[in-house]
Amino acid sequence: PERLSIKHELYATIEPAITPEAIVATSASGLTLSEMQAGWKDPSRFVLGHPFNPPHLIPLVEVMGNERTGHGVIEIVERFYANAGKVTIRVNREVPGHVANRLQAAVWREAIHLVKTGVASVEDVDKAMWAGPGLRWAAMGPTMLFHLGAGEGGLAAFCERYTDSFNRWWDDLGVLHLEPELAKQLVSGIAKAADGQTPADLSAHRDGLITAMLKAIAPLRAN
Amino acid sequence: PERLSIKHELYATIEPAITPEAIVATSASGLTLSEMQAGWKDPSRFVLGHPFNPPHLIPLVEVMGNERTGHGVIEIVERFYANAGKVTIRVNREVPGHVANRLQAAVWREAIHLVKTGVASVEDVDKAMWAGPGLRWAAMGPTMLFHLGAGEGGLAAFCERYTDSFNRWWDDLGVLHLEPELAKQLVSGIAKAADGQTPADLSAHRDGLITAMLKAIAPLRAN
Repeated sequence: PERLSIKHELYATIEPAITPEAIVATSASGLTLSEMQAGWKDPSRFVLGHPFNPPHLIPLVEVMGNERTGHGVIEIVERFYANAGKVTIRVNREVPGHVANRLQAAVWREAIHLVKTGVASVEDVDKAMWAGPGLRWAAMGPTMLFHLGAGEGGLAAFCERYTDSFNRWWDDLGVLHLEPELAKQLVSGIAKAADGQTPADLSAHRDGLITAMLKAIAPLRAN
Repeated sequence: PERLSIKHELYATIEPAITPEAIVATSASGLTLSEMQAGWKDPSRFVLGHPFNPPHLIPLVEVMGNERTGHGVIEIVERFYANAGKVTIRVNREVPGHVANRLQAAVWREAIHLVKTGVASVEDVDKAMWAGPGLRWAAMGPTMLFHLGAGEGGLAAFCERYTDSFNRWWDDLGVLHLEPELAKQLVSGIAKAADGQTPADLSAHRDGLITAMLKAIAPLRAN
């Protein structure tokens, strides 16, 4: 579990047993690298390598070192993941959730807000995602997509045209905490959406969809 | 353009020219249905049908009527879009941006915040999306994915386990407006990511990726 005392104990056992060249990467998303470094005599080869669920399919690994990280260590880690067919990004500063979990948290907050305020059902908010922006985001990230949204004028034209809309939407987005009542509303919405399928059935369906998409786009990504 | 006076003028020309059974759907995302209904003598067959960009590829159409909408009209509209191969969701309440644009606005705000605060480059935040959560969201929406994230325990177990993490992330997410300085930072990040490719090149690449994914998952969606 993501408890610092357990991690520090573990590192005290690991460190004497590994060769000096070994690099150790942690996948913890709830603890910071600097907190965990305190468990090491020499933290110069202890870094963040955070995959994304389901890790057997999703290519992303978030990589981070800091001022205590040894020279060239991050580059070795990036080559290691690239050789394993992963796609890495560089996290330059310690923040809760790194990058991908924060994007995900931002989306889920608004998804919940829309359900909570009666704008749409759990099932329809989810459907809006997979039939809508989700498909685009599997191709490209949000800023590049907006760069393409304004044609030849690119992102500069897009920002000029839509600044007022985004500022208005941002001011109107929901702010909330996940309370037990809200969790119940979501659980009941998901029960309806699942329509009798077990999490295992649905996970297999998810993995099938992701695998099919990954295979289909692999030749296009390689170009 | 999304200006109410122009819309009202247009509707005054359209209404006398159409048969009484005709349904008119607006795709405006910046104006509300009730504002636009004011342009109609009989607004009972004037509804929202909001597609998502690029509309020639993305299946989603957000459909909304309100208390002035005629009985059964929304159902006809949904059948029309389904016959055209689209996927509809029902928006039950008028909010700026409907559903998909709000999810998108929530993501983009945090994406910009991560760039602004030096956590990652524009290119890497975009990469975190397409290599990470974007792939999952092309398969299923965020709440269903979390339902599967906790195994057999489902969403109830997920909420229990991660309530503290999400509440902490939500409290830490960025709040901002799109100012000219920030737009400049994004434009320069996208120029680097585009690496000489024109918006037209990149749009063709985007459409190729989306088309390949849609073809690959079509047999799985039909089940």
